[in-house]
Amino acid sequence: MKLKVGLVGGTGYTGVELLRLLAQHPNAALHCITSRKDAGTSATDFFPSLRGHPALDKLAFCTPDEARLTECDVVFFATPHGVAMSQAEALLAANVKIIDLAADFRLQDPAEFERWYKMPHACPHLLKEAVYGLPEVNRAAIRQARIVGNPGCYPTAVQLGFLPLLEANLVVADALIADCKSGVSGAGRTAELSKIFPEVTDSFAAYGVAGHRHHPEIEQGLRRMTRAPVQLTFTPHLVPMIRGIFATLYATLTDDAADVQALFERRYADEPFVDVLPAGRLPDTRSVRASNMVRIAVARRPRGVTVLVVEDNLVKGAAGQAVQNMNLMFGLPETTGLTALPISP
Amino acid sequence: MKLKVGLVGGTGYTGVELLRLLAQHPNAALHCITSRKDAGTSATDFFPSLRGHPALDKLAFCTPDEARLTECDVVFFATPHGVAMSQAEALLAANVKIIDLAADFRLQDPAEFERWYKMPHACPHLLKEAVYGLPEVNRAAIRQARIVGNPGCYPTAVQLGFLPLLEANLVVADALIADCKSGVSGAGRTAELSKIFPEVTDSFAAYGVAGHRHHPEIEQGLRRMTRAPVQLTFTPHLVPMIRGIFATLYATLTDDAADVQALFERRYADEPFVDVLPAGRLPDTRSVRASNMVRIAVARRPRGVTVLVVEDNLVKGAAGQAVQNMNLMFGLPETTGLTALPISP
Amino acid sequence: MKLKVGLVGGTGYTGVELLRLLAQHPNAALHCITSRKDAGTSATDFFPSLRGHPALDKLAFCTPDEARLTECDVVFFATPHGVAMSQAEALLAANVKIIDLAADFRLQDPAEFERWYKMPHACPHLLKEAVYGLPEVNRAAIRQARIVGNPGCYPTAVQLGFLPLLEANLVVADALIADCKSGVSGAGRTAELSKIFPEVTDSFAAYGVAGHRHHPEIEQGLRRMTRAPVQLTFTPHLVPMIRGIFATLYATLTDDAADVQALFERRYADEPFVDVLPAGRLPDTRSVRASNMVRIAVARRPRGVTVLVVEDNLVKGAAGQAVQNMNLMFGLPETTGLTALPISP
Amino acid sequence: MKLKVGLVGGTGYTGVELLRLLAQHPNAALHCITSRKDAGTSATDFFPSLRGHPALDKLAFCTPDEARLTECDVVFFATPHGVAMSQAEALLAANVKIIDLAADFRLQDPAEFERWYKMPHACPHLLKEAVYGLPEVNRAAIRQARIVGNPGCYPTAVQLGFLPLLEANLVVADALIADCKSGVSGAGRTAELSKIFPEVTDSFAAYGVAGHRHHPEIEQGLRRMTRAPVQLTFTPHLVPMIRGIFATLYATLTDDAADVQALFERRYADEPFVDVLPAGRLPDTRSVRASNMVRIAVARRPRGVTVLVVEDNLVKGAAGQAVQNMNLMFGLPETTGLTALPISP
Repeated sequence: MKLKVGLVGGTGYTGVELLRLLAQHPNAALHCITSRKDAGTSATDFFPSLRGHPALDKLAFCTPDEARLTECDVVFFATPHGVAMSQAEALLAANVKIIDLAADFRLQDPAEFERWYKMPHACPHLLKEAVYGLPEVNRAAIRQARIVGNPGCYPTAVQLGFLPLLEANLVVADALIADCKSGVSGAGRTAELSKIFPEVTDSFAAYGVAGHRHHPEIEQGLRRMTRAPVQLTFTPHLVPMIRGIFATLYATLTDDAADVQALFERRYADEPFVDVLPAGRLPDTRSVRASNMVRIAVARRPRGVTVLVVEDNLVKGAAGQAVQNMNLMFGLPETTGLTALPISP
Repeated sequence: MKLKVGLVGGTGYTGVELLRLLAQHPNAALHCITSRKDAGTSATDFFPSLRGHPALDKLAFCTPDEARLTECDVVFFATPHGVAMSQAEALLAANVKIIDLAADFRLQDPAEFERWYKMPHACPHLLKEAVYGLPEVNRAAIRQARIVGNPGCYPTAVQLGFLPLLEANLVVADALIADCKSGVSGAGRTAELSKIFPEVTDSFAAYGVAGHRHHPEIEQGLRRMTRAPVQLTFTPHLVPMIRGIFATLYATLTDDAADVQALFERRYADEPFVDVLPAGRLPDTRSVRASNMVRIAVARRPRGVTVLVVEDNLVKGAAGQAVQNMNLMFGLPETTGLTALPISP
Repeated sequence: MKLKVGLVGGTGYTGVELLRLLAQHPNAALHCITSRKDAGTSATDFFPSLRGHPALDKLAFCTPDEARLTECDVVFFATPHGVAMSQAEALLAANVKIIDLAADFRLQDPAEFERWYKMPHACPHLLKEAVYGLPEVNRAAIRQARIVGNPGCYPTAVQLGFLPLLEANLVVADALIADCKSGVSGAGRTAELSKIFPEVTDSFAAYGVAGHRHHPEIEQGLRRMTRAPVQLTFTPHLVPMIRGIFATLYATLTDDAADVQALFERRYADEPFVDVLPAGRLPDTRSVRASNMVRIAVARRPRGVTVLVVEDNLVKGAAGQAVQNMNLMFGLPETTGLTALPISP
Repeated sequence: MKLKVGLVGGTGYTGVELLRLLAQHPNAALHCITSRKDAGTSATDFFPSLRGHPALDKLAFCTPDEARLTECDVVFFATPHGVAMSQAEALLAANVKIIDLAADFRLQDPAEFERWYKMPHACPHLLKEAVYGLPEVNRAAIRQARIVGNPGCYPTAVQLGFLPLLEANLVVADALIADCKSGVSGAGRTAELSKIFPEVTDSFAAYGVAGHRHHPEIEQGLRRMTRAPVQLTFTPHLVPMIRGIFATLYATLTDDAADVQALFERRYADEPFVDVLPAGRLPDTRSVRASNMVRIAVARRPRGVTVLVVEDNLVKGAAGQAVQNMNLMFGLPETTGLTALPISP
C-alpha cells in the first residue's frame, strides 16, 4: 500500500523533518507539498540535505490552489496555527484524513484556544471529533480518527512523564512541577533576532515563565489521567542545542512506599517508543537525537519522585509522532518508517 | 598597598581565572604559583591567553617546596579537596591568610565532610574558625577571618536565590526545589571521556541526581537562614556551554499576598554583585559571562514563587568571589578588581 | 543473504557508527563485537542511543579470544593502528574478508607506514594485495578484494575533490593546497584534555601543521591520478562541531578556459554518493550530517580553481564507506543500507 | 583628560562592544548614543549584560537629532555603510573627529566603493584625508587624522599576516591565498534566517566565494606594502562560534632560505597588540577572546610559508581597534583601556 500524502507548509523544521521521514516511509508517497511563498522551488533546492533522493529531487512546492490535496489519503499541516482549521471541512468532505502539527485541534475547549492563540476557532464542531494524537494514551481512538491534533513537543514529554503516576493516583496532582529545557529548533525556522547564533549559543535562558501556550495543553492532558484536581507549574528554558527536549518533573508522592520504577516499567512495557531506563541511569537528549524514542528515568527522593524525560522535539515531539499517528490511522504497523536508530555522537 | 599573593594549584579553570583576575587587580602581586606537575613551566606557556601580560610572562609554576608561601599575605588554594587543610596550620602560624576554593572549609561538620569527600578532615579544630565566604550573608565575619571556605558554584546561586525568602520566613522551608544547570567548566579542567566535546555538545543531561557534594553545603547554608526545618531537592544538569550556572528555584509561599519582587529588591539594594531584574524580565547566563555579577528574577505563580538565578560559575561561583573575599579580609573596597563588564555576545 | 559480520573494537566513534549502520543493514547480521576492556558489557549499556534495537539489545562485547571471528564472512577493524595487521593472516586463512578502518592497509609502502605510525608493518607481503577502499577510484579492485584499507576521513574528501582535475591534467599538481576543517569526533572517543568541551567549543584552531598522518595517504592517492609530480600543502583545523569535514582545495589551472563545473558533473554523474552542486551553490557540512553523501562545489577564479568538499567524517569518512566497501566485496547493491537521508537541522 | 565621546548606532555587536570598552576607558566619557529605532531605551535595558555600571545605567539612546554630537571630541559610527559619510562634513566643521567602523572611509577609490557598496560616495573629497586605521601600518598618520576608516575584521587579520612578508618582498605577491574563518558575530546583530542557531551550529560553511566586500579592502592594503603586483584569493567561511577570526594564509617564498620566524618577531617586536608565537606553537581563537590581541604563527613548508592569524573580530577586528585609534588620535597611551586579558575558557 502506498498512501497518497499531502504536506501543507513544508518549509519549517517540522516540515523538512516530515519530508525526511515520509520520503523514507515504505507506505507513503508524497503527492504534493505546498508553500505559498516558495511555490515553484524544488524541495531539494530549499533543503540541500535532501538532494539525491529520487522522490524529493522531483518534488516542488506548489501553491495551495495548485495542490490537489483532495486527491490525498492524508494531509499533514506543518503550518502556523489557524491554517489547518480553515481547510479541515473541505478535506474531510473529500474523505481526506488530517494530521495537524499546529495547535488547531489540540485544545478541546474553543474558548481556551481563542485565549491562547488570539483567534476564534474556525470549526469548533470538529473539535469534538478530533483526537489528541498521543498514542500511549489514545491509541484506540487514533485508529478511528479522521482528524488528529498532534501534540506539542513539551506536552508529549511532560504527559508521558506524569502518566503512570497520575493513572495510579500516586502523586499530589495539584502541585506538579515541570522544569523543561528545549533545543532551539523548537522555536521554529523563522528569522528572529532572539534566535540568531550569537544570542543563543554558550548561554542558557528561561522564557515564557509568565505563560506558555503548551501549559493549557499539558494540563488538559494531565486532567484526563486522574480525577484529582490538577495544577502544574511549567517553566520552559532554552538550551544551546539544535534538537531535544529534557523535562525534569517533580511530584510529591501520596504513598512513599510505592515502587515507581516498577510502575513505569510496567506501564510502558509494550510501548515501542517509550524506553524506561534501568534504575540509576539518567538520560541525555543525544541518546534520542533524530529518533522517535522517548527515554524516561525515575528517581526517588524523600516523599517525592523526580522523573526525567528526553525526546527529540522534531521527531517524537512533532513529525515522528505525526507519522506514528498516520500509521495507526491507516492500519499500518505503528513503527513503520520510524525505526531508524538515533544519531550519536 | 600590594598584597603578596600565593596560588596553590593554578592549572585548573578556577586557577587560570584567579590568575586573570589577580594579574589585573591593582592591589595584588602574584608572589608564587605552585604546581607539582608543571613546575618550571611559565604561566603563559600553559595558558596562551595570558601571553603579553608583563607580570604573567615572568611567572613560572614552582613546586610547593620552592614556593615561599609563608612570605605571602594570602594564599589561594585552587586545588582538589584535601590540599588546603593539610597546609592550613603552617600558613596560619606564619600569619598568612587562607582562601580555599575547594571544600575543605565549607562544611562545619567534619563527619559530613568525611561522608561526602571520603577522607577524614585534617584539622577539624580549624573548622570553627573558618568562615563561609558568602559576603551577602557573612560579610562582617569574612572581614575578620583568617580562613575562608569559598562557596561552591551551585551553592552560591541557590543560597542567594532562597536567602530573602527564608530570612523572611515566607516559604515552606522543607519542600524546596533547586533545578540547576551548569556549564561544563564547572566539572573542571581534567581529561575525562564524559566531558569531551562530542559527548557533551548539542545535548543536555542530568547528573548526580542520587547525591551531589554541593547538596549538604547548600542545606547547611539554608539552615542558617531560618529556624524552620529545611529540606531541598537538588537536581544538577549539564548544559553545552562553557561558563554559567542557571538555578531555577521553586518554593511554596506561606503568605500568598507577599510582594516578593519588593522583598528581593530591598534585600539586595546595597549588594554590589547582586542585580535583581525588574519584574517580568528573565535572566540568561550570558548576561553575566566573565563577570562577578549575579542576576535574579522572581516570578509569582499560584501559591508559589519561582526564582531564577544566573552567575558565572568561574567568577562569582569561584575565583571572583574568592577575590571579593580577599578584598574584605584586607580592608580593600569590596569591588576592587571585579568591576569588568560581562562579555556579550 | 545475511552476511555474518564481526567487529573488532566497537567502542569508539567509528565503532558505534558501524553498529548503527550494520544493525540497520538488510544483509548483515552482527555475529560478534570485541572489546578487551569492555567484555561482558552489552552494546546498549555502552551506547544508550542503541537501546531498543532488537539485535543490539542482545549483543554484548566479548574478548578477542571468545569472539569467533573466523566464523564470520567479514570482519571490520575499528581499532587503533596495528591491530588489523596482526590478525589479518589468520582471518584470511579462514576465508574471512577484512575491512580495516585504521591505517594498516592504506599505505602501500611499509617504510612510509613505519615512519608515520612508529611501528614496523606486521605483514608487508599483504600490502600488495590490499586494496585502497575508495570506490570512486578503485571500484573494480574492491569487488575482488580480500583486504580493504578503508580511507581516512581527510583523504576521502581531498582525493574526491582533486580527482577530476588531476585525471584531466588540468592543474599544476605540485602546488596543491588543502585547507581542511574537521569536527571533533574525528579525533576519536578518548579522554584527552585538549578535547574537553571548554577547550574546544566557541573556538577554532589549527593543528598538525608540521605533519599529519593523512598527508602521505593523500599524496599517495593523488599520485595515482596523474603522471605529474604531486606536492600538497595540507593544513588541518579543528571546528567546534561533532561531525563533518570541510575541505577547501586550491589549485592553479593549466588551462584557464576549462569548464571545471562540467568536468566535475561528468566525472561524478554515476556516483551514488558524490553530489556535485549546481554552479554558484556552496556546501555546508550539515547537509551531509549522518549520511554517506559527499557534496562538492567548484568555484573558478583567475587562473585557478577552488573546490569545496563536505562529508560526514564518521560515515563517508569512515563507517559508511566501510559498509559501501562491504557491499562491493560481496556483490550487493553498492548503496544497500546507506540511503538514509542526512539529519538537518 | 576625559574625552567626550559620541556613538552613532549602538545597537549592533560592534556598538555594544564599544559601549563595554568605552565605559571602562579611563579617559572617555560617553556623551550620547544614538539609535533612531530605539530612542528612549536605556543602554542597559537593551543590553542586560551592562546593567549595574553606573555610567551605562543612566545612558539612554536618543535620536540623531537630539544627540548633541557636535559637542563631542570624537564620534564613533557603528552603523551600516553610508551613515558616517553623510554626517562627516558637519562633524568635521564642528571640530569633531570621526572613527567609522563601517566601510565609508576604508576604500580610497570612490568608484571601488560604489561598486561594492551599491551607493555613490557622499564625500569623495574627504577620502583623501581619511586615514586607514591599521596602527601597525599607519600609526603616524592616525595620530594626525581627523577621520579614520576603521579596518574590517578580515582585512585586519589578513594584512597583519602578510605584512612582514610583503614589506620584505619575500613572497610571490600575485598568488596569495587567504583561507579565512569567522565567528558568527561578524555577520552582525540582525534577524536573518541564515544566522539562526539551528542553521549555523554544529556545521561549517563557506560563503561569499564569488566575491566579498573585504576583498578590495584587503588588496588595497596589501598593495601599499609592496611594489609588486598583488593578487589574492580570499575564501571566507563561517564557524559555529561567537567571536573570532582565524586566517590561514598561504604564500610562495621567493627566497627559500629566509628565516620567516625571525622576520615576524622583528617586525612586531614593539607592537603592543601583535603577539608572534614561538616557533612550533599554533594559535586558537579563544586565546584572544574579548581582547585586542592578535596572535600569529608562522610555519615553513617546501618553497612556501603558511601564516596563521587569530583575532577577536569584535575587538581588534572592530571596536578595540577603533579605541586604539582614538587613543592615537588624542595622544593617549595607545593601550589605554585595552589591556584586559582574554577570557579563557
